[in-house]
Amino acid sequence: MIARFAAAAAALALLHSGPALADTLIDNIEGISVSREGKVTRFAGMVIGDDGRIVEILKRREKPSEPVDFHEDGKGRVVIPGMIDSHLHVMGLGLAQLSLDLTGTSSLEEALSRIEAYAKAHPDRPWIVGWGWNQEAWGLGRFPTAADIDAVVPDRPVWLTRVDGHAGWANSAALKAGNVDADTPDPEGGRIERIAGSAAPAGVLIDAASAMVDDKVPSPRPEDRDLALHEAQELLIRNGVTAVADMGTSVEDWMTFRRAGDLGRLRIRIMAYAGSVPDMLLIGGTGPTPWLYDDRLRLNGLKLYLDGALGSRGALLKAPYADEAGNTGLALLNGTQLRNLMSRAAMDDFQVATHAIGDAANAEVLGAIEELSQDFGGDRRWRVEHAQIVDPADLPRFGEHGIIASMQPVHQTSDRLMAEARLGQGRLEGAYAWNSMLEAGAPLAFGSDAPVEAPRPFIGMAAAISREDASGQPFGGWMPGERVTREQALAAYTAAGAFAGFAEGRFGQLKPGERADFLMIDRDPLLSGPGELRDTVILQTWIGGQKVYERGK
Amino acid sequence: MIARFAAAAAALALLHSGPALADTLIDNIEGISVSREGKVTRFAGMVIGDDGRIVEILKRREKPSEPVDFHEDGKGRVVIPGMIDSHLHVMGLGLAQLSLDLTGTSSLEEALSRIEAYAKAHPDRPWIVGWGWNQEAWGLGRFPTAADIDAVVPDRPVWLTRVDGHAGWANSAALKAGNVDADTPDPEGGRIERIAGSAAPAGVLIDAASAMVDDKVPSPRPEDRDLALHEAQELLIRNGVTAVADMGTSVEDWMTFRRAGDLGRLRIRIMAYAGSVPDMLLIGGTGPTPWLYDDRLRLNGLKLYLDGALGSRGALLKAPYADEAGNTGLALLNGTQLRNLMSRAAMDDFQVATHAIGDAANAEVLGAIEELSQDFGGDRRWRVEHAQIVDPADLPRFGEHGIIASMQPVHQTSDRLMAEARLGQGRLEGAYAWNSMLEAGAPLAFGSDAPVEAPRPFIGMAAAISREDASGQPFGGWMPGERVTREQALAAYTAAGAFAGFAEGRFGQLKPGERADFLMIDRDPLLSGPGELRDTVILQTWIGGQKVYERGK
Repeated sequence: MIARFAAAAAALALLHSGPALADTLIDNIEGISVSREGKVTRFAGMVIGDDGRIVEILKRREKPSEPVDFHEDGKGRVVIPGMIDSHLHVMGLGLAQLSLDLTGTSSLEEALSRIEAYAKAHPDRPWIVGWGWNQEAWGLGRFPTAADIDAVVPDRPVWLTRVDGHAGWANSAALKAGNVDADTPDPEGGRIERIAGSAAPAGVLIDAASAMVDDKVPSPRPEDRDLALHEAQELLIRNGVTAVADMGTSVEDWMTFRRAGDLGRLRIRIMAYAGSVPDMLLIGGTGPTPWLYDDRLRLNGLKLYLDGALGSRGALLKAPYADEAGNTGLALLNGTQLRNLMSRAAMDDFQVATHAIGDAANAEVLGAIEELSQDFGGDRRWRVEHAQIVDPADLPRFGEHGIIASMQPVHQTSDRLMAEARLGQGRLEGAYAWNSMLEAGAPLAFGSDAPVEAPRPFIGMAAAISREDASGQPFGGWMPGERVTREQALAAYTAAGAFAGFAEGRFGQLKPGERADFLMIDRDPLLSGPGELRDTVILQTWIGGQKVYERGK
Repeated sequence: MIARFAAAAAALALLHSGPALADTLIDNIEGISVSREGKVTRFAGMVIGDDGRIVEILKRREKPSEPVDFHEDGKGRVVIPGMIDSHLHVMGLGLAQLSLDLTGTSSLEEALSRIEAYAKAHPDRPWIVGWGWNQEAWGLGRFPTAADIDAVVPDRPVWLTRVDGHAGWANSAALKAGNVDADTPDPEGGRIERIAGSAAPAGVLIDAASAMVDDKVPSPRPEDRDLALHEAQELLIRNGVTAVADMGTSVEDWMTFRRAGDLGRLRIRIMAYAGSVPDMLLIGGTGPTPWLYDDRLRLNGLKLYLDGALGSRGALLKAPYADEAGNTGLALLNGTQLRNLMSRAAMDDFQVATHAIGDAANAEVLGAIEELSQDFGGDRRWRVEHAQIVDPADLPRFGEHGIIASMQPVHQTSDRLMAEARLGQGRLEGAYAWNSMLEAGAPLAFGSDAPVEAPRPFIGMAAAISREDASGQPFGGWMPGERVTREQALAAYTAAGAFAGFAEGRFGQLKPGERADFLMIDRDPLLSGPGELRDTVILQTWIGGQKVYERGK
């Protein structure tokens, strides 16, 4: 019977794109794993079981306790857990790979020349859709305008999302498609930039206003979505990211993930947070889904947006922006709405992850969590996403009720000058305050917010330990008291990221019983300076005991 | 390594609610299986493998070719393949179990007394929702009215769907909720019954008009849907149905099926046909899904509605209704719309199942299939659902292009008198023409249309071989030339039903390689008269080699 049984089990395993049916010893490695608190374990080998889980961790010269089927020589390379990106947008990242990319442009002229070239290269596309512009990086001193694009693409709609996703830049054809004209009022939670001295729209639509054009953009087809997920996975695996928290999962996104899972094409692990209560209920029904596809997919809960972003002055502040008198940002939910939505999720044990960037937004969500914790006890792991600008008086509140601070180190280096302009020097004490979060007792989970920033965890680690940007500025770090140690940074990208998504025990650490998700890299991240960290070379990426990426192959 | 491997495989198997990890011999049975064409195989035992598939079929006194782990004595009972219901509405059936059931009422007074009692028993429900009324069965000679219900439930909306699903009966509160008043025009594809000599709505809304109230009924919650699926599965398994074609699957339905599948609670096999193109694309994406959960779920394609039903005079006829001058029924799609939707599905290899009841609707879908077959070759298995009233001149066209006639035997016995009234005696030659379909070469798949009729395949078989109703009327059968043989009827409920859903080789027959889905029953259906067939007792139901129902347990 064994023969038939084995064949049946093999068929099952293949069906679910499961692990190889053999035990593998990987030895001669410089293995590193950290606990959620940053406690380091070093080891020299590991045995990976038939099911893709780690069976044994071996010290130097220690032998496996049972004979193994395969042996792989690690050639002395450094092995660390696969990185977990605790805040990104999987489909946004993938679709961005398929659209016009304006990141890295350093002037309006450069952006316009890319737009023109892209439109010429894609004459069949009824819309030109892109993303990644940042007028701050262009030194423009103003938002770009529809007229700017009209000069290079007048014939069809062009719609370009800002790098932070909180504003869109349209040409005249796109404004027309969105029915945005001088008579259109600003929608609640949004703003239409106007031509100076006129009611006519200038071209940029902020926060809720961008929906007017967004809604007119043709939806991607299922095959576009499948391709986008493939591209996102390729990019993530190449960058050493093996698991992610997907923030704002739509039903279409979820179906794309499932389609990949059903066909054995889901390789990364996705902890999903639905983009709305209806989507949450449609996907999860009565609560979080089970872990699917060998711990590769789970709907954990709900993503909420409480305010906008700092760059577009949509972040909700306690006092007006230093660079725009009277403006305190945009509340996307009022306090009652926030509490109602959080309750709706919590009553069915969905986890809640709330986007809060400004100090007023952070205070609001902290207040809501404090109130809701009366009714919803147990292990809730309330998440605050970004937690960028926090009133120092509010920082200790993060340590209560098990609140997780889900933060993105590279935002600090990208935003530094902008944050100084928006807030002024006196209000930066609680800005990107990673170390204060840890000291307050809040678990810290790091991510990239990709496609807002590239999903490159070693660049993030470098920022986290230095608060210097890629050029080493400012020397010694911006507000260096908020740096964290290498061990804390690695934990925030591994074990703490798993904990933030209820995945501890499944992945995030290299220890018996967890999935064998790991990287082989060319240096020891716990012995590297910021510059060295940025240059880390990922030699191999393994997920569930299977090699999914090898450099140069 | 074997021990750990076995444990891992066991975990996998449990995860997917798979088969017991052992081979089982069931012997001492009167085994029967039929091919799609009705060719009978008889056998005395079978071996079911670890994976729930049949390994071997044994003749009398034949021994298994390998030793088995378990042995079950069939005690001489008859074993037939699990029945496949090729046309029903799983969630409709389940939700109907949770709502007010008016089937079997024989007068308006009896219905009103049930409505009143139900409303009293459920004082907390903001709406009273029910189904199953049939004014024909009441001998009422008119549709019921809002005033009829108002007399017993005036305080909240009452909304009751007709037995065929093609009309709804509202009280005044429900009409008000739907904003249906004297000023409301008939919507396209629908009709508002009016009080005689007045424009005021009378209470019954036909076909598309019923959406006005339907849209106001509070949606079931996910937990209601889970319970409904559970109830539907219980009912089906008890009646010997192990697989179904779900006609008009919504995204909510699909998510409910997946939730059950993910949690190992999906027991029956569901071949799903999405209720709309957007739902089809959202669920399937680029084509039919893979077979999921060990062949328990697949999105096969798209369900289209071309016309209404005969009872509500919505079926589209070539000549006017005999009992309503000038009315030829309601076209829910025009020819161009039909072809566009069929093309959209076929271009991505989705199967198309089109509801066509009247002779004009059947001619239209046949014409569309003939045209589309030029562009979409290969094994398409175009399905016509119901194919109830067919112009005899069109019958031979069913044999071309592999068209499947998906028909419901009990509709014939339920509808006989109504069909005679609607059509007159001269136009019944192609009505419920099962044998003509087979003679034309069209594969015949039988179903119940549950919850329109009870999902009871042995009642259906009795109708199929006799064209007599449960009281034996009319003696000798209605248009007895359209009777089919017992073997053809059993094939239409098993192997041909699987073929109609691209499931041949997976289930539908008892032979090596197919899933072990079977019934133990108390008599031989191939040796039973209609009355005996109706009284068949289902002793056990097995799906995938697991006993899921045992009578009296």
